[in-house]
Amino acid sequence: MLTSKMESNDANCLDLPDFFKEIDGELWLVEEERGNMKIQYRVKEVLLSEYTPYQHISIIDTYDFGRCLVLDGIMQTTELDGPMYNEMVAHVPVAIHKNPKGILIIGAGACGVINELTKYPFIERIDVVEIDKVVVQESIDKLKCIAGNGYSDERVHFFFEDGSKFVKDKQNCYDIVIIDSSDPIGPSRILYSEEFYSDVKSALKEDGLLICQSESPLFYKEILKTIRKRLKNLFPIIKTYKLIVPCFPGGIWSLTMASKKYSPEDADPNLLPPNTMHINKELLKSCFDLPNFMKDDLE
Amino acid sequence: MLTSKMESNDANCLDLPDFFKEIDGELWLVEEERGNMKIQYRVKEVLLSEYTPYQHISIIDTYDFGRCLVLDGIMQTTELDGPMYNEMVAHVPVAIHKNPKGILIIGAGACGVINELTKYPFIERIDVVEIDKVVVQESIDKLKCIAGNGYSDERVHFFFEDGSKFVKDKQNCYDIVIIDSSDPIGPSRILYSEEFYSDVKSALKEDGLLICQSESPLFYKEILKTIRKRLKNLFPIIKTYKLIVPCFPGGIWSLTMASKKYSPEDADPNLLPPNTMHINKELLKSCFDLPNFMKDDLE
Repeated sequence: MLTSKMESNDANCLDLPDFFKEIDGELWLVEEERGNMKIQYRVKEVLLSEYTPYQHISIIDTYDFGRCLVLDGIMQTTELDGPMYNEMVAHVPVAIHKNPKGILIIGAGACGVINELTKYPFIERIDVVEIDKVVVQESIDKLKCIAGNGYSDERVHFFFEDGSKFVKDKQNCYDIVIIDSSDPIGPSRILYSEEFYSDVKSALKEDGLLICQSESPLFYKEILKTIRKRLKNLFPIIKTYKLIVPCFPGGIWSLTMASKKYSPEDADPNLLPPNTMHINKELLKSCFDLPNFMKDDLE
Repeated sequence: MLTSKMESNDANCLDLPDFFKEIDGELWLVEEERGNMKIQYRVKEVLLSEYTPYQHISIIDTYDFGRCLVLDGIMQTTELDGPMYNEMVAHVPVAIHKNPKGILIIGAGACGVINELTKYPFIERIDVVEIDKVVVQESIDKLKCIAGNGYSDERVHFFFEDGSKFVKDKQNCYDIVIIDSSDPIGPSRILYSEEFYSDVKSALKEDGLLICQSESPLFYKEILKTIRKRLKNLFPIIKTYKLIVPCFPGGIWSLTMASKKYSPEDADPNLLPPNTMHINKELLKSCFDLPNFMKDDLE
C-alpha cells in the first residue's frame, strides 16, 4: 500500500509506471492518453499496481473521485461518476427491450454494469465475458463502491476468455448484448471489428439489441462514425445516445445501440429501478436528443 | 509571440506566470484551480500574457481546443466548445421570454454571448457591462473565432465598469439580465451576493428574468445551492439547467434562471436561430431535465 507521500521505505514505490508522477512531493496520476490534453488526479493511495498478461492495472484512491480503476494509465471508472456511466449502459437497453431474459456483457470492467442489471428480477441470466480475470478479482476486492454485490448474484456467470471468440458459437441466445469495451487500443481492439459485430448479431435473438461504448463525440468522432457505419451494415436500427462521464476527457461521451426490432420510442420508463444516481424517466428519453454538432457528424 | 518550444531568445518567455509550465520541452497550461484535479493543455502559441488591474489574462492557441481565453490561469472559453456554452446562455432565456427588447449582460468575457444575441432581429438593445476592458479588447482582436462580429452591432453598448454598481440605479429597464461571471473568486465575487441579485431584480421589468452561471453541480454544488437559495428569496420561479462545457472540470455545468413570470414550459423553440452548433429544439426542452443527483442536491 502506497501513500501519496511516497514513503521511501516502500519498495513498491519504485515499481510504479511512468504515468504516476511525483509533483511537489505528492503523487499524481497523469493521464497520457491524448497528446495535447492531460488530466491529473491527486492520488491518496495506490491500492494496486500490477502488470497482468493483458495490461497494467492500478486501483487508486483519489481526493476528488474516490476509488478508481485505471488500465494502462487511463481512467476507466471512479467511485464518483461510475454510476453515471453504468446506469446509462445498463438501464437504457433494458427499458427499450422491456423483457430481456438473457444478457451478455463483454468487458466486465469494475462490475458496475453487472450490479445495475441484477436489480431487475425478470432477468434470468447474465453472462459476463472478460479477458482479464485480474480486473474482476481486484475490482470485487477493492472497488466494492462500484462493483456492489451484483457479481455474487446466482444469475451471473463469468467467462474469463476472449469476448470475440466467446460469441463465435452463440446463435440466437441473448436479448441484449452489452459491449463495454475500453478504448480500441490494446486487448479491446478486436471488439470494434465488423466481424465481431456480425457474430454478436448472430448471438442475439430476433428481437435482440446491442449497446456499445462508442467513444467521445468531440475527440474521437471518427471512431464513433466507424462504429456506426459497421453496425449499419448489419442492423436496421442504429441510435447513438449521449451521456456525461466526468472522468473521461471532455465529459461528454457516446453509447450506440444497434437493434433488430426495438427503437428508443419503445422504452418503458416505469421499468427503471428506484434510487438511481443519474438516470430517470426524463433522461431515459432525452439522452437520445443529440446536440447539433453530433447530429451533423453522424448524418 | 511565444512558440511552444519556448525559444530562449524570447524575453517574454520568462514573464509567463507559473501556470504555464515547460514539460519535456513543450509549453503547457496547467490549471491549478482545483487542488486535487488538474487539466493540462498543450500550448501551440501564447498570443497574450498580461496583468490587467483586475487579473491576469492570457490568450493562447492550443492543439485540441483551438484558441482559448484564460483568466488567472483558469480556462474560460475556447474555440472548440465556446458555442456549447454561449448558445445555452443566450438562447434559452430568449426562447423562454419570447419577446425581449432590452438585455443586460454582466461579464462580457470573450463576447460570444453578445454574438449569439445579435442574431435576434427583435432585440433592440444589448447593454454589456465588463469591469476589465482588456478582456473585451483582446478577445475582439485575438478571439474572433468566439467573439464573431456581434460586438460591432449598433444595438450593443459597452460599459467598462463594475457590474454591481451599474445595476444600482437601474429600475424596470431590462427584459433579460445575463450574469456571465467567472468563478466567485477575484473580481466576480460580488456578482454572487444577495444584494446584487436584489438590484438585478429591480433592474428587470415585471416579466423579466435573469440567467446566471451557477458552477459545477459535481464539484461546486455548495455554490450552486447558495445561489439558488439567494435567488429563491427574491424570485418566484427558479430553474437550474444543465449544459456540457468540455473545458470545465467534469464537463457538466449549471446555469440557473430566476424569473418573475415565465417558466421553461413557456419557451418557443421556433425562435432558435438557424445553424447553431449545439442547441436545438429538443435540447432547449431537455436541458431542464436534471440527473437525480442534481435533483437531490437542489431539493
